[in-house]
Amino acid sequence: MFSDSPNNPSASPPECWTAREAELLAVTLRLLQTHGYDRLTVEAVASEAKASKATMYRRWPSKADLVLAAFIHGTKESAVAPRTGSLRGDLLAIGASVCQSLREHTSTMRAVLNEMSHSSALSAAMQDNFVHHRNVLMNEVLCEAVERGEIDAGVINPEIWDTLPGYLVFRSMVADRPPTEETVSMLVDEVLLPSLQRTRS
Amino acid sequence: MFSDSPNNPSASPPECWTAREAELLAVTLRLLQTHGYDRLTVEAVASEAKASKATMYRRWPSKADLVLAAFIHGTKESAVAPRTGSLRGDLLAIGASVCQSLREHTSTMRAVLNEMSHSSALSAAMQDNFVHHRNVLMNEVLCEAVERGEIDAGVINPEIWDTLPGYLVFRSMVADRPPTEETVSMLVDEVLLPSLQRTRS
Repeated sequence: MFSDSPNNPSASPPECWTAREAELLAVTLRLLQTHGYDRLTVEAVASEAKASKATMYRRWPSKADLVLAAFIHGTKESAVAPRTGSLRGDLLAIGASVCQSLREHTSTMRAVLNEMSHSSALSAAMQDNFVHHRNVLMNEVLCEAVERGEIDAGVINPEIWDTLPGYLVFRSMVADRPPTEETVSMLVDEVLLPSLQRTRS
Repeated sequence: MFSDSPNNPSASPPECWTAREAELLAVTLRLLQTHGYDRLTVEAVASEAKASKATMYRRWPSKADLVLAAFIHGTKESAVAPRTGSLRGDLLAIGASVCQSLREHTSTMRAVLNEMSHSSALSAAMQDNFVHHRNVLMNEVLCEAVERGEIDAGVINPEIWDTLPGYLVFRSMVADRPPTEETVSMLVDEVLLPSLQRTRS
């Protein structure tokens, strides 16, 4: 499991790394994008970044830990609530940020995804350190919209609140039809807002 | 490319195989689920099914062609319009059918997906022989709803009409939270129908 992952990940913000650690993660992402997961080694990252293997393994006990940390670090901008002042603005900003991450990290995500099917520890770490924070973010955005009187609290449904990132990831990973700005605005205006703004019976 | 794929795939129905060919594809799927894509060989399928390698290669010029054909054959029930008589019924039926396919074929889909990132020919064949037919199906369902007066023709938007299968695939492949019957009914009743039944301004 993640070396700095506390027992209760729900209380923790996305982790903060030192500048040197962030540099090691950036090198990891770069090597991942060039060589893919299978051919990446912790040794290659250490060598490229002029770090000792001991330093690497002290922070990230395995290649899977290192790659997941690099992925989460590389997508951390998208973990911050956009706070544009309106639900529509927030959803468009989240969609744009997901698209940006997907453009940069699709190959890493494919690798992590493929690896997740072999490793339940990686799968759990992804759940605690990535998916969970994205859900907290979406909940914040929706609750703020309730406070502003834009939507009813009753329409918030955790079962399906990741429809926006979910569909964009599908488009990028599976359908081979990368989502555009237009995809995001159509999804927000024609699907999500009519759903969230409906009056419950 | 697909051996029986005509130049204009938009005019072709999902392919029909002879009973013997269907048997070879079923053996392929079974071996795929046991051994995964990387360790599958056309020779192993031929041997298991007591077929000659020449027979195999005459029909499916490469392993990728064979695996894609097996995947499409294995999911062909979901390529038929449900015709329940209502838009809600049709969407629920499509959702249930996608969930069923995902339960049976997630590992194959992961393999095909992973392979698609290395092969543009496989990617194109998937597009022509799978994605395209699913879009034709969704278009049929939506057009029939327009004819019945359930929705306005103006709400049909090809850019986002695969939100239903897309989100279910995401849930199954990425989020490690396989979709249930409840996921489908919430998605249909709380997201898709409010979107499709809205009045355009």
